[in-house]
Amino acid sequence: MSIGAVNDGGRNRRLRLGMVGGGEGAFIGGVHRIAARLDDEWELVAGALSSDPIRARRSGMALRLDPERCYGSFADMAAAEATRSDRIDAVAIVTPNHVHHPAAVTFLGAGFNVICDKPLCRTMEEARDLAARVAVSGRLFAVTYNYTGYPMVRQAREMVAAGEIGALRSVQVEYAQDWLSTDLEATGQKQADWRTDPARSGAGGAIGDIGTHAFNLAEFITGRDCVELAAELSRFVPGRRVDDNAQMLLRFDGGARGALWASQVAPGNENGLTIRVYGETGSLSWKQEHPNQLWVARLGQPPHVVTRGGPGAGPSAAHATRIPAGHPEGYLEGFAQIYRDVAAQIRARQAGVTADPAALLVPGVREGARGVAFVTAAVASSAANGAWTAVSP
Amino acid sequence: MSIGAVNDGGRNRRLRLGMVGGGEGAFIGGVHRIAARLDDEWELVAGALSSDPIRARRSGMALRLDPERCYGSFADMAAAEATRSDRIDAVAIVTPNHVHHPAAVTFLGAGFNVICDKPLCRTMEEARDLAARVAVSGRLFAVTYNYTGYPMVRQAREMVAAGEIGALRSVQVEYAQDWLSTDLEATGQKQADWRTDPARSGAGGAIGDIGTHAFNLAEFITGRDCVELAAELSRFVPGRRVDDNAQMLLRFDGGARGALWASQVAPGNENGLTIRVYGETGSLSWKQEHPNQLWVARLGQPPHVVTRGGPGAGPSAAHATRIPAGHPEGYLEGFAQIYRDVAAQIRARQAGVTADPAALLVPGVREGARGVAFVTAAVASSAANGAWTAVSP
Amino acid sequence: MSIGAVNDGGRNRRLRLGMVGGGEGAFIGGVHRIAARLDDEWELVAGALSSDPIRARRSGMALRLDPERCYGSFADMAAAEATRSDRIDAVAIVTPNHVHHPAAVTFLGAGFNVICDKPLCRTMEEARDLAARVAVSGRLFAVTYNYTGYPMVRQAREMVAAGEIGALRSVQVEYAQDWLSTDLEATGQKQADWRTDPARSGAGGAIGDIGTHAFNLAEFITGRDCVELAAELSRFVPGRRVDDNAQMLLRFDGGARGALWASQVAPGNENGLTIRVYGETGSLSWKQEHPNQLWVARLGQPPHVVTRGGPGAGPSAAHATRIPAGHPEGYLEGFAQIYRDVAAQIRARQAGVTADPAALLVPGVREGARGVAFVTAAVASSAANGAWTAVSP
Amino acid sequence: MSIGAVNDGGRNRRLRLGMVGGGEGAFIGGVHRIAARLDDEWELVAGALSSDPIRARRSGMALRLDPERCYGSFADMAAAEATRSDRIDAVAIVTPNHVHHPAAVTFLGAGFNVICDKPLCRTMEEARDLAARVAVSGRLFAVTYNYTGYPMVRQAREMVAAGEIGALRSVQVEYAQDWLSTDLEATGQKQADWRTDPARSGAGGAIGDIGTHAFNLAEFITGRDCVELAAELSRFVPGRRVDDNAQMLLRFDGGARGALWASQVAPGNENGLTIRVYGETGSLSWKQEHPNQLWVARLGQPPHVVTRGGPGAGPSAAHATRIPAGHPEGYLEGFAQIYRDVAAQIRARQAGVTADPAALLVPGVREGARGVAFVTAAVASSAANGAWTAVSP
Repeated sequence: MSIGAVNDGGRNRRLRLGMVGGGEGAFIGGVHRIAARLDDEWELVAGALSSDPIRARRSGMALRLDPERCYGSFADMAAAEATRSDRIDAVAIVTPNHVHHPAAVTFLGAGFNVICDKPLCRTMEEARDLAARVAVSGRLFAVTYNYTGYPMVRQAREMVAAGEIGALRSVQVEYAQDWLSTDLEATGQKQADWRTDPARSGAGGAIGDIGTHAFNLAEFITGRDCVELAAELSRFVPGRRVDDNAQMLLRFDGGARGALWASQVAPGNENGLTIRVYGETGSLSWKQEHPNQLWVARLGQPPHVVTRGGPGAGPSAAHATRIPAGHPEGYLEGFAQIYRDVAAQIRARQAGVTADPAALLVPGVREGARGVAFVTAAVASSAANGAWTAVSP
Repeated sequence: MSIGAVNDGGRNRRLRLGMVGGGEGAFIGGVHRIAARLDDEWELVAGALSSDPIRARRSGMALRLDPERCYGSFADMAAAEATRSDRIDAVAIVTPNHVHHPAAVTFLGAGFNVICDKPLCRTMEEARDLAARVAVSGRLFAVTYNYTGYPMVRQAREMVAAGEIGALRSVQVEYAQDWLSTDLEATGQKQADWRTDPARSGAGGAIGDIGTHAFNLAEFITGRDCVELAAELSRFVPGRRVDDNAQMLLRFDGGARGALWASQVAPGNENGLTIRVYGETGSLSWKQEHPNQLWVARLGQPPHVVTRGGPGAGPSAAHATRIPAGHPEGYLEGFAQIYRDVAAQIRARQAGVTADPAALLVPGVREGARGVAFVTAAVASSAANGAWTAVSP
Repeated sequence: MSIGAVNDGGRNRRLRLGMVGGGEGAFIGGVHRIAARLDDEWELVAGALSSDPIRARRSGMALRLDPERCYGSFADMAAAEATRSDRIDAVAIVTPNHVHHPAAVTFLGAGFNVICDKPLCRTMEEARDLAARVAVSGRLFAVTYNYTGYPMVRQAREMVAAGEIGALRSVQVEYAQDWLSTDLEATGQKQADWRTDPARSGAGGAIGDIGTHAFNLAEFITGRDCVELAAELSRFVPGRRVDDNAQMLLRFDGGARGALWASQVAPGNENGLTIRVYGETGSLSWKQEHPNQLWVARLGQPPHVVTRGGPGAGPSAAHATRIPAGHPEGYLEGFAQIYRDVAAQIRARQAGVTADPAALLVPGVREGARGVAFVTAAVASSAANGAWTAVSP
Repeated sequence: MSIGAVNDGGRNRRLRLGMVGGGEGAFIGGVHRIAARLDDEWELVAGALSSDPIRARRSGMALRLDPERCYGSFADMAAAEATRSDRIDAVAIVTPNHVHHPAAVTFLGAGFNVICDKPLCRTMEEARDLAARVAVSGRLFAVTYNYTGYPMVRQAREMVAAGEIGALRSVQVEYAQDWLSTDLEATGQKQADWRTDPARSGAGGAIGDIGTHAFNLAEFITGRDCVELAAELSRFVPGRRVDDNAQMLLRFDGGARGALWASQVAPGNENGLTIRVYGETGSLSWKQEHPNQLWVARLGQPPHVVTRGGPGAGPSAAHATRIPAGHPEGYLEGFAQIYRDVAAQIRARQAGVTADPAALLVPGVREGARGVAFVTAAVASSAANGAWTAVSP
């Protein structure tokens, strides 16, 4: 962990990012923007943020884009950006699934690097077409299977590759959620609506939305291809048009066996992505809801826990780490909250209005002074053999 | 959770931030910069990043600051910024403790809002002086007790204030680390060096560095002042100049009792900040290493877990939340890693060099196509009553 | 929890138990004997403890059986016991699997109640034969699927039956161990030897030894029959004669789906029996390695934990509980250890020899007096406003 | 783990136990009896089970004692037993605290070994008197600080003694419950009644009832005496006559520091006994509510978990272990439940009455046959490449 790891980059300019999708009412677009900002490597400069041109423009203005780079369609954006000297370095496609293929085709064709949300597209035809176009284009094409970016996931992959659990025998992977336990799409909720519509989502429901993450994670960590599967997809919520629960057995290249369960109707699970990998001599276990720990067991030894940045963590984890061991990554968001709330207070002052009370919880000089009083009292009490001492700022 | 929560802001311009400290070799400065960037409310525009003018300038250039706003001292910075029309909206002071007071005095005097790292300063004299100056200045003064920015910490405070655990009886708070279990300062390690030097750190060692966080957290969540304490500070590592283990009993306004333990010589603890609060009718428990859960117990009912964004989480938690329940905040960093690695690949291409192999793990069109093949095979297998089906991209 | 629950029984005499198998070198027989003794309902009075008559007798003598009731074969035992006025009330069959059927047939035929270890027998022919004989005999026939005796397992069954999770949708059950990760049977280890020999174990390896527990648990808790399965059994250890890893998909009566994984080659798992049951409106989760907690989630509410004896635990759990909430059942064994060690000390004194040093750790009057000194000092210190006070016995 | 470990003893006769206290309505007496029975080393043969002679006799009959050994007072019991050739080998004193001293004095005086519940007695005068009498008597005197009987507690002691964590620096021990959070004694609840009455309990409330366990555990594991303490005792429930919350700082022989918290008014805690011990090079952590795990951390290594019977567990743990790793000790109780329920069914049959429905959940031949059908179907399905196969008993 060095200042390099918290990455102030600074080797020349920020890269320029364009975005397709992610306007008002979207979810994952905002996540992509935070992610792009975090390490100060990117700045968002252009967008076709909605398929509705008015909404697209309004969303772009809200994000402080130059009005002339708030495009009404991705086709316009690709065409216009291609002519600029300060053209975007890459485009992020963060639309519902059915737009992935046409947008990617357009931007690859115009010579742009592409960052595409998962799943790649809806059909094998689209997938093969895209693969061919990427090969021809020479452009960089990334798919945001974001769980591959976690330090302990990379650590796990590194350990399997290094033979630390021996020959792979069994993989248990699951991704369970509960947010579709009821007929949420009937309420018009936007995220549920398109995800349960085969025309926009593709043939898979839970299997596509989260099963692909589980599948990718299994292949990523083991370094093995899954060559065959035997599956049963269910639709438990009456009227649902796609699967909401999927279970299957897996066979991997090299002889390992496995099971995968993906469900969006499993009450009590918020985002239960878990993988366990068993080899001839050891095993690894990782849970996304406690992502900073990797359990490691070796036959004949007590199981131990490798933490991001702790003893036993290797270069792959270090590459993906910004802050020291023991500070779960929420540390950054906690800090960011202070900055956000201070900003809200300053903006309120500048506007001559009252700030949101929720933004007023930021500790101030009173709390700072109490902290100093605390240290002062503790030192004094200890010097007086533990006598009770007032904390007096 | 709305797009507003992932905060695309956009109400007019970003706020302008200056920074004192945080140059090469520093730790917390980088964290402040990520935090400031996360919600797109701030841009860093000026800095006196080191007490060494050459290092200050080099650090500023690395952060893409305008060269004329890379200052050689905080005094220069305050003076120069005060004269600019695009002057900074706030300064962040992220130096070792002994610089907090003079820097804060200077910037308050020049009319700037201040964000100051904790502990506020070294002595009660400094603290009282600062408090007086803040009062006179009318400026905003924030202290980055960052744990107060966690959603479930705010949730806890809200619940205590709402009487959900009844009258407060007992507080158990602790902050244990192990990184100073040996004589690390003797190796010249920068973080250990100044933290164990009373001249720069103040009279407190562990008590100041982490005890103040525990103390602040206890007061923040309970809404009660600690009025008296009985302490014992120890120096377990031979030769250490400040305490490395502190234990104490606490008495709170209103009659509650408590204990606080802060240690930097507790092997097995990376960043073990934990607080438990007991009232007449219930209790709350929170651990920083699993920050998205808040345990809640009420007499006569089974204990339950409130998660950030899950059922039972209130407006305070929502205010501090960017992503849905179940996605621990490391989710953003995982996503950011993809963007960082894509940037590294694009930069390598632009420079005509080979990219760092660690940056090449980003999933691409092959992995995307395999995901589609997975969905396709699963749907086909299920339609064939679970027949084994090849996964063929 | 009442004295009734810790069960001093006493309604007339103890029941008389006979045992087939469980002699020297056996494992599960000793467990059955402790279990029979725990509630003081049974006394062991007869045994055919080994198929080797000399060993059978020696084992019986070690257990303080009347020499004339130490039988050389189960056939002899059934015949002789049938003629006694103080004949056994039931026989426990705790042999390797291949003896279950003939022994059960013999004892049922002689009119005895039977307690049989699992799995019931090796083949469906044996199973159907036994079922028919039980029906005809009118005798009580119990199979020690011991996990059905856990308080929170009974609680789970009760809750499912009461509709607390709504219509059943999905069952995830697994039983993972690691003790057969290597070719242990080649070393002659007795437990591994017969379990991996199809002639004694039956066609199933892991699937029979532990898979049957998982299967039974799933049916017991859900109250649903599994009507169909699709399985893949593997033999990962070279040369192994039975499966050591089994994975399968399940279909339940009523439409629920499920997955079962049983493995004895999963490093890091000692006895990882876990079940999760998902319904339309809620879910339950139980882990044998932390058996006193049952996780309960209901849609739209925070998940909570019901503990044996705690709030929310119902009559089924109470029926199977001996000690108060929070005292995990190891509490009894801890207490028993004191009694065992005291016994060892008394026996050593009676024999005029030195006791095993490990039996000398029992706290004595010194430790008792230190405890009183502790209370005395604490009361005095508190009365003196927390002054440091010596602990002086 | 061998048959020896499940301990069928058998070296000659069972030892004879007498009991003072533990009659109807008592709690800990029943626990002592189960504990004495578990390893088949003891048989209860005499009792003065209540201070009320009629109740004493009735309780003794319920426990199947010989009527002439159901005594009306402990004095009668000591006198009568002393004259018998089959006199008891030891007496267990399981009364409220105020009877400990007179009963122990009486039985020591009559030449008996004594097993006494904790705390030893009420005052230092009583404690010193007992210590002197034990020394003179030459009798064995054990105090049931039962937590010292846990395998992983003994493991911890062994590891500290072996220097595995280096020189001791800090001890954090706590014992938190919530059952006295309200004025339970006002309801007449028997356990609350005497524990909150200084005349019967002694000067300490929580500090005596559970604080002594925590204190003993700290000294047992560390092998160090606590030489000084600074305490604050509180009475949070209005009207309570003894402390219900106690917090203190500790100083140990050799320079280590520590903190102890005992509370019976901490909502959400059933029996939260937890100890953490930190040394110069490592640490140990144990929680009574998950007693089979001992967390071990060594500086510079990933923390690991030693389990009862697993890798890394030493001879002290083995000495106190009956069943294999991964089978938490509740395993025995689960098994016992089957035996208890079978007994209930047999007794009901013998009495010609209907058994308690709760006792009918014992698996029978149907469940046994279903298990065989399960194995049969799994083997067949796997042989048919995973074809769906009916489970048909």
